Amino acid sequence: MTLPSPLVPPARVLLGPGPSDVAPSVSRALAAPTVGHLDPYFLGVMDEVRAMLREVFGTKNVLTMPMSGTGSAGMETLFVNLVEPGDRVLVGIHGVFGGRMAEVARRCGAEVVTVNVPWGQPLDVEKMREAAKGQSFDVVAMVHAETSTGVLTPLAPFRALADELGAMLLVDAVTSLGGVSIGVDEHGVDGIYSGTQKCLSCPPGLAPVSLSERAWTKLKNRKTKPQSWYLDLELIGSYWGSERAYHHTAPINMLYGIHEALRLALEEGLPARFERHVRHAKALTAGLEALGLELPVPEASRLPPLTLVAIPEGIEDAPVRKALLERYGIEIGGGLGDFKGRAWRIGLMGTGSTPRNVLLCLGALHETLAGMGWKAKGDPIAAAAAVLG
Amino acid sequence: MTLPSPLVPPARVLLGPGPSDVAPSVSRALAAPTVGHLDPYFLGVMDEVRAMLREVFGTKNVLTMPMSGTGSAGMETLFVNLVEPGDRVLVGIHGVFGGRMAEVARRCGAEVVTVNVPWGQPLDVEKMREAAKGQSFDVVAMVHAETSTGVLTPLAPFRALADELGAMLLVDAVTSLGGVSIGVDEHGVDGIYSGTQKCLSCPPGLAPVSLSERAWTKLKNRKTKPQSWYLDLELIGSYWGSERAYHHTAPINMLYGIHEALRLALEEGLPARFERHVRHAKALTAGLEALGLELPVPEASRLPPLTLVAIPEGIEDAPVRKALLERYGIEIGGGLGDFKGRAWRIGLMGTGSTPRNVLLCLGALHETLAGMGWKAKGDPIAAAAAVLG
Repeated sequence: MTLPSPLVPPARVLLGPGPSDVAPSVSRALAAPTVGHLDPYFLGVMDEVRAMLREVFGTKNVLTMPMSGTGSAGMETLFVNLVEPGDRVLVGIHGVFGGRMAEVARRCGAEVVTVNVPWGQPLDVEKMREAAKGQSFDVVAMVHAETSTGVLTPLAPFRALADELGAMLLVDAVTSLGGVSIGVDEHGVDGIYSGTQKCLSCPPGLAPVSLSERAWTKLKNRKTKPQSWYLDLELIGSYWGSERAYHHTAPINMLYGIHEALRLALEEGLPARFERHVRHAKALTAGLEALGLELPVPEASRLPPLTLVAIPEGIEDAPVRKALLERYGIEIGGGLGDFKGRAWRIGLMGTGSTPRNVLLCLGALHETLAGMGWKAKGDPIAAAAAVLG
Repeated sequence: MTLPSPLVPPARVLLGPGPSDVAPSVSRALAAPTVGHLDPYFLGVMDEVRAMLREVFGTKNVLTMPMSGTGSAGMETLFVNLVEPGDRVLVGIHGVFGGRMAEVARRCGAEVVTVNVPWGQPLDVEKMREAAKGQSFDVVAMVHAETSTGVLTPLAPFRALADELGAMLLVDAVTSLGGVSIGVDEHGVDGIYSGTQKCLSCPPGLAPVSLSERAWTKLKNRKTKPQSWYLDLELIGSYWGSERAYHHTAPINMLYGIHEALRLALEEGLPARFERHVRHAKALTAGLEALGLELPVPEASRLPPLTLVAIPEGIEDAPVRKALLERYGIEIGGGLGDFKGRAWRIGLMGTGSTPRNVLLCLGALHETLAGMGWKAKGDPIAAAAAVLG
């Protein structure tokens, strides 16, 4: 074979559903010297990562750490550890990731009941309560921030439902961790997972998870071993805990990366960071509306880090995204499932949630749509600037 | 909480069982700009990684790619995809990783028969043939390069046994890929997995795997879905194949890293690279013998990238490793299982397999042992230098 050349990746502006742009100091951290996974220095890194992760999740849970895989490995971690064959799982579905939860739960041998709402809407707790009537459930599972639709669903009503059912509450927080307040302890979440490549602005490769005391007890009292050895939390907990028992070789440099990403989030301050995501999302949506575009998600349910935009009549999906990428180096996301070819997903996440990216995205989208004959209703830049103040 | 400081990891010399020292250009690759996992640029990176990985594995297998997890995720990938409940699996065990294969196979619902040989010895194919007599097996599983003992077991006799049984051959090549010839096609291996942090000198975080046509057919004809969604090779194959169907967000920057690591391996040339590992291992063992230390593994079965050294009578394990780390910044590995506290593991892997590291390791070990009263038989540096020429 011909030997490939060394890589020189292009500098994109990542405004899709993730990965998001990586902070320069996070990139540098990735390239720091690798040490051994049992090196005393590295054990200190692990402790700091855990402590910072607890802050960002809003929890005191002992079992809080990044799993050695991407966000989907976090999802699988929760289900393989906390669901035993025959367990009954109630899953709310309003996008790709709720559907995936149901699929993963089934592969764990669970009896799964799903409750669907239209994509682009928040989950409907009443509909789930109705569906659960007269039945027992071990787990209620829901997606806090649906990456496929840009919908945020509040956690509190689902904790209440889980309480009524005597069930654990498992939550997907892939696109909320570090960009939206979660409050794991405040909302009594029993198991939660996320990724690094969204609002933490670290490259993909780790899946932060956190488990409550109750979840830990359930895990300890399993009748069968978890079907996954790689994701077995009792074994992994022994490496991350005081025993430091070798399980697998941790992805050292990725952990340097998340250490720096968490540090940046806490240095900024979480309330300020969450507020920044809201402010820039509002500026973006004001600009999109000035462009004359429609936002399918009801205003109260919009996820600040990720905005769903309907593709207007007469405009084709792929040529727009291609033009944005090739002319401006900007990535935005296509739609998934019900929204495939019908909507775009624009992410302003972590490091990427800036006034500069709001204006850049609106300007590039305006130019591109104008070239395809679209007439804007107003001036998107002025509308966004008015919100940015 | 008090905000941790930015990380400034120490520059170790990693001479343990992995992670090994990372080549400077691999570190730089990790820090390159992140692009999207469906970016046309990244799809090109994936194609090049696959092509190079096939060269290093010695295969034309279509299904060859790095899984998004560490080496143990590679092990789990093979078993969850290729073993169905009730399948019969014959596993050779001569260290930690054979035992782990048996455990993972059991968690997949397999009926597992294990054949043990003493740690530090190569697997005994005759003993496995004897154990299999009169029984049918779907899978023969074995470890090519036992990371826990530094033993290399040739593949050909196990292919012959698998043929007699009509079984697939699954192989652990975590500490051989890139440092020792494997010859996946030559030896008719049906499924093989490795890690990046050994002889490829890339940080941990990916698990290269390769599956034969026969394995692929078995996968396609499964009666049940694999118990893991995250590691489901039919779904992942659709992302790595021409469909490019989204499965999970690939760990982009880790893939930049393995791209550069594979490039370096092929640029050097595989025969030269394998020969380099042999030459430096011979220099190291000559030096260790001059020091008066014993090597528990029979000479013909020694794994060039990793050497097992008996801890001599009167010398304690931990203080030696601590002194090497603290005074010289050198990491060597402790023993595992049967060799815990009784042996060290010294790795000369990938970028780290150099004349400089041979002399450095021998010099530092000599000084440290001398300080504890150990009398060397001869001059370890001279003995190593004689081999290095």
